[in-house]
Amino acid sequence: MRELGRLLTGTEAGLVAESLEDGESLTSAIGVIDLAKKAKVTDLVAGAGLRFKTEILAAALRGIEGARSTTRAVDTIWTMPGHLAQSGGLTTSLASLVDDARQSVVCSTYNFQKTSGMWRALRGAVERAGVSVRVYIDAEANEGGGPGPSTAEVAAWLSPGTVLQTKRFEGKRVRNHGRFLSIDHRFVVVTSANFSWSAEYGNVEFGVVIDDARLAARIEDEIRDAEPYLYEPPARA
Amino acid sequence: MRELGRLLTGTEAGLVAESLEDGESLTSAIGVIDLAKKAKVTDLVAGAGLRFKTEILAAALRGIEGARSTTRAVDTIWTMPGHLAQSGGLTTSLASLVDDARQSVVCSTYNFQKTSGMWRALRGAVERAGVSVRVYIDAEANEGGGPGPSTAEVAAWLSPGTVLQTKRFEGKRVRNHGRFLSIDHRFVVVTSANFSWSAEYGNVEFGVVIDDARLAARIEDEIRDAEPYLYEPPARA
Repeated sequence: MRELGRLLTGTEAGLVAESLEDGESLTSAIGVIDLAKKAKVTDLVAGAGLRFKTEILAAALRGIEGARSTTRAVDTIWTMPGHLAQSGGLTTSLASLVDDARQSVVCSTYNFQKTSGMWRALRGAVERAGVSVRVYIDAEANEGGGPGPSTAEVAAWLSPGTVLQTKRFEGKRVRNHGRFLSIDHRFVVVTSANFSWSAEYGNVEFGVVIDDARLAARIEDEIRDAEPYLYEPPARA
Repeated sequence: MRELGRLLTGTEAGLVAESLEDGESLTSAIGVIDLAKKAKVTDLVAGAGLRFKTEILAAALRGIEGARSTTRAVDTIWTMPGHLAQSGGLTTSLASLVDDARQSVVCSTYNFQKTSGMWRALRGAVERAGVSVRVYIDAEANEGGGPGPSTAEVAAWLSPGTVLQTKRFEGKRVRNHGRFLSIDHRFVVVTSANFSWSAEYGNVEFGVVIDDARLAARIEDEIRDAEPYLYEPPARA
């Protein structure tokens, strides 16, 4: 069974399982598999004594399919005015995700306002022992002087957490427009929502929260690798 | 096996599989299961002849876990200046996703510029037989008069596809800030990127593409339900 898992892609395993579940014979179900692998698959299935136990075989194949996917769950996160959003979570719930962080919060936003639930939640994370906080924000959108805090104020508020703002790259200002959170290197939020009251209550905003540690690691690594080129600590206020 | 699938949650199945894979006995592995279910689980496993075939049982449990998740794959989509993004796809690839649509494109953006790859790709989708196109955009961000097209121009360009802009709700302008695509009721993109050149080439933008038909349906249904309250067709140009 382990060898079968090494041999088949997740998609192949899923397709064969689907055919078996639909009542097809093994011979017919493995029609979708790459010709070079087919004979080997037949041998392995026979060796495991599952030639005619198609129900167990289908379950095992679903297992291979599942094991190849590292995503455990995806849920939607909406903001809509007037409580119109009926399914999934709300953007306001992101603050609770941060409240639950026990190891780390890595996040990115364009605009960071004190009116956001994140203002309090990220400060709380910084204050908890053992939780590291790293925030990427846009320099121009948070220059201060307007209603919002400057990047230096954000950095002071979230100290000793790390706040990084965009710098010039190849002669141009970089705009940090991505919004994501990675919590405890496991839960990933991708959203259109800035860290602001309008994003949490007023606009139509959409995002997803994904339970996938491998995805979390990829995102954290990618932006970390770009750090020397695109980001810098804000100058002190 | 089917009965076991009905009885266990995805999380329970995954936890028991993990324990079995770590070499624990069945008795120990099912320690995590709700007490009321435990005896029934033992009976079902024995009935299937898998009491001591823990490897097959673990695979089948992974199957239950996998079947409970409807997500097949998640990939990242970045924009970074200067080709810094090294993993996953690029925001420019979203146009190809639209090019590949064979049934439908439902999408939402804040800002829609002709400089975006989406301008051509969505027009192409509208022209293909059997592909329905539905676009939600922000009214204020696309008033026309500036560099970008007005909502009326977008609607004319994508006719006979449907373009809907935000309207007033409870006395206030609604801002459509969410950015997503749902392709063929199956592939879901969630991104910070507007439909514009800067989003596709200049900024730091982040998104994910998720292969999950159930998620696609939920998102399409949710925004469709909100349509009468938040959106309206643009007035003719």
